[in-house]
Amino acid sequence: MIDDDVPASVEDALARYLAQRRADLVARAPAFADAVDALTGFVLGGGKRIRPTFAWWGWRGAGGAAGGERAAVVLRTISALELLQACALVHDDLMDASAVRRGSPTVHVAFADTHRTKQWLGDPDRFGMAAAVLIGDLALAWAEDMFAGVDGARPPAGAREAWQAMRSEVLAGQFLDVLVQATGDESAGAALAVAQMKTAAYTVERPLHLGAALAGADERTLAAVRRFGADVGVAFQLRDDLLGVFGDTRATGKPAGDDLREGKRTLLVALGLQLAERAGRGADAAMLRAALGDADLAPPAIERIRDVLTGVGAVDAVERRIEALTGSAVTALTEARLAEPAASRLAELAVAASRRDR
Amino acid sequence: MIDDDVPASVEDALARYLAQRRADLVARAPAFADAVDALTGFVLGGGKRIRPTFAWWGWRGAGGAAGGERAAVVLRTISALELLQACALVHDDLMDASAVRRGSPTVHVAFADTHRTKQWLGDPDRFGMAAAVLIGDLALAWAEDMFAGVDGARPPAGAREAWQAMRSEVLAGQFLDVLVQATGDESAGAALAVAQMKTAAYTVERPLHLGAALAGADERTLAAVRRFGADVGVAFQLRDDLLGVFGDTRATGKPAGDDLREGKRTLLVALGLQLAERAGRGADAAMLRAALGDADLAPPAIERIRDVLTGVGAVDAVERRIEALTGSAVTALTEARLAEPAASRLAELAVAASRRDR
Repeated sequence: MIDDDVPASVEDALARYLAQRRADLVARAPAFADAVDALTGFVLGGGKRIRPTFAWWGWRGAGGAAGGERAAVVLRTISALELLQACALVHDDLMDASAVRRGSPTVHVAFADTHRTKQWLGDPDRFGMAAAVLIGDLALAWAEDMFAGVDGARPPAGAREAWQAMRSEVLAGQFLDVLVQATGDESAGAALAVAQMKTAAYTVERPLHLGAALAGADERTLAAVRRFGADVGVAFQLRDDLLGVFGDTRATGKPAGDDLREGKRTLLVALGLQLAERAGRGADAAMLRAALGDADLAPPAIERIRDVLTGVGAVDAVERRIEALTGSAVTALTEARLAEPAASRLAELAVAASRRDR
Repeated sequence: MIDDDVPASVEDALARYLAQRRADLVARAPAFADAVDALTGFVLGGGKRIRPTFAWWGWRGAGGAAGGERAAVVLRTISALELLQACALVHDDLMDASAVRRGSPTVHVAFADTHRTKQWLGDPDRFGMAAAVLIGDLALAWAEDMFAGVDGARPPAGAREAWQAMRSEVLAGQFLDVLVQATGDESAGAALAVAQMKTAAYTVERPLHLGAALAGADERTLAAVRRFGADVGVAFQLRDDLLGVFGDTRATGKPAGDDLREGKRTLLVALGLQLAERAGRGADAAMLRAALGDADLAPPAIERIRDVLTGVGAVDAVERRIEALTGSAVTALTEARLAEPAASRLAELAVAASRRDR
């Protein structure tokens, strides 16, 4: 039963699809095997499969069957979300110059290392960059192919609408994110816009929309699941922002305060600056501003910034907003009148997304 | 009539499509306008529209109508090839660190310049790279959307097969190209494999296949137009390779000998090395090898290399191969028994692709 373990079912669908594409292509282009294998390793090497999971419960909640031929087709269709995510991550790691992902070297670093080890011609980093650009492009192209399906099993028009909107939104969100970091936009509005497009729409709202549309949900249901998804998605990002500054390394897997070192312009930081200025604590605002993007930020400085963010009320403000979003999400979920067990599973996912200890 | 000016008809379809997508998206994400405008400027700013042109004549040759609603849908579908090409070029320019495209700064350079001029935070080149990655991704996502069309006007399964194969092949060809440069693979086989996947399949064979499949061509016709396209495409690349070393700057728009400075591993170079070694002209082979990738290669050195390539018979060998490919292409075209005026137009395109003075 897919219901019993959505992530494992998604991984199975991805493994089958990637093996089939590899067989088709590598016969014609043997040298391409390294790129296909790198993509396959990346896709199957980890991840919580959160997007296909939301899509699956959207499908089930809007009346889609738990098993049978149609459920298998839907599983394949929504598993394409993981290939899209592979493109986003491989290209993001390149843009952020990240060296490690899930405990392994990122794609651009791994290919640069191969180049160095084999003492090939030219610049290893340039080779690594080219490999990451092309492997990300391949992930995006194959996401489309997997989504489009085969003749007689094409997704309906409503599902394609959700898919189209989602891909533009995530790219717009990523572009906005890069722009906000570059311009140093300190406004809460900019931070929220990035959270809405890059996380909420892409991670929760549109996957749910996609799943429900695959089941032929009516407009009222689609609107309600989208409201639920948008609120849960923003709550999820706001919790992530708090964990990025206050989180325990053992829980988050990232060094404490890494969001500050990376200079991330989150709602937490935007409110911290705003509230500090408003309270006449200009020195605290200046300290926070100076810390953003300081790669050498030490633990005592992080501790001082935590005190400022708590002291001016920014942490409380973000916590209240998470609570309000979780509340409105649960209301929207009730209005969507989804079938069980989807309604319960989605309520659990909403609570998990907002939880402090996740 | 689309027949009278395929490139202008394609540009019109692209302009309409991009304006509609911009209107949809920019209302929700105003800051994304710069990225959408950069893509629009790039797509509408030039290009010979060679891929949709081959696809159009594939459609017409296999019996597709010259006008009416169905022809308009097909025009939109095949215009998506130009968005795919925009992704390939924007990402290629980034990977090759090219500064100029069609007389304007490349996308990554233009965004880095904006960053510098506005004195934004962080590294301008990193910002330019991020913008080019995301704008290329957007071009690929929108290519898919434009190809997929709207409900009731979806491309048939055979057309999707051509589209799927083409996208994997061009990425495989680009990866192979990067790999061949890095490993310094001198074999004629490697040079031909890159020409087959990166140019022939992507530029001629699959666009023709796509167009003919849209018209519901039978297997025999599809096989014949694909043979024609594969041969014309390789001939086109081989002529390009000759122009890259022997071409006149006024005709090619590139500095003479630029392919040598970039270290391109073409069939011409592979045969030059092979024939020089075989003729006991080791010093000439060494000179050619040393010139490849030498960014400061001066005109007298280029002249000496031209003499070597001509003297060992590499130029003749490539010319003979172009002739043979053009001959077999024309035979395949006859076998395809395409409708007029497509058959004549395709014969003209085949001759133009192999011509010395293009």
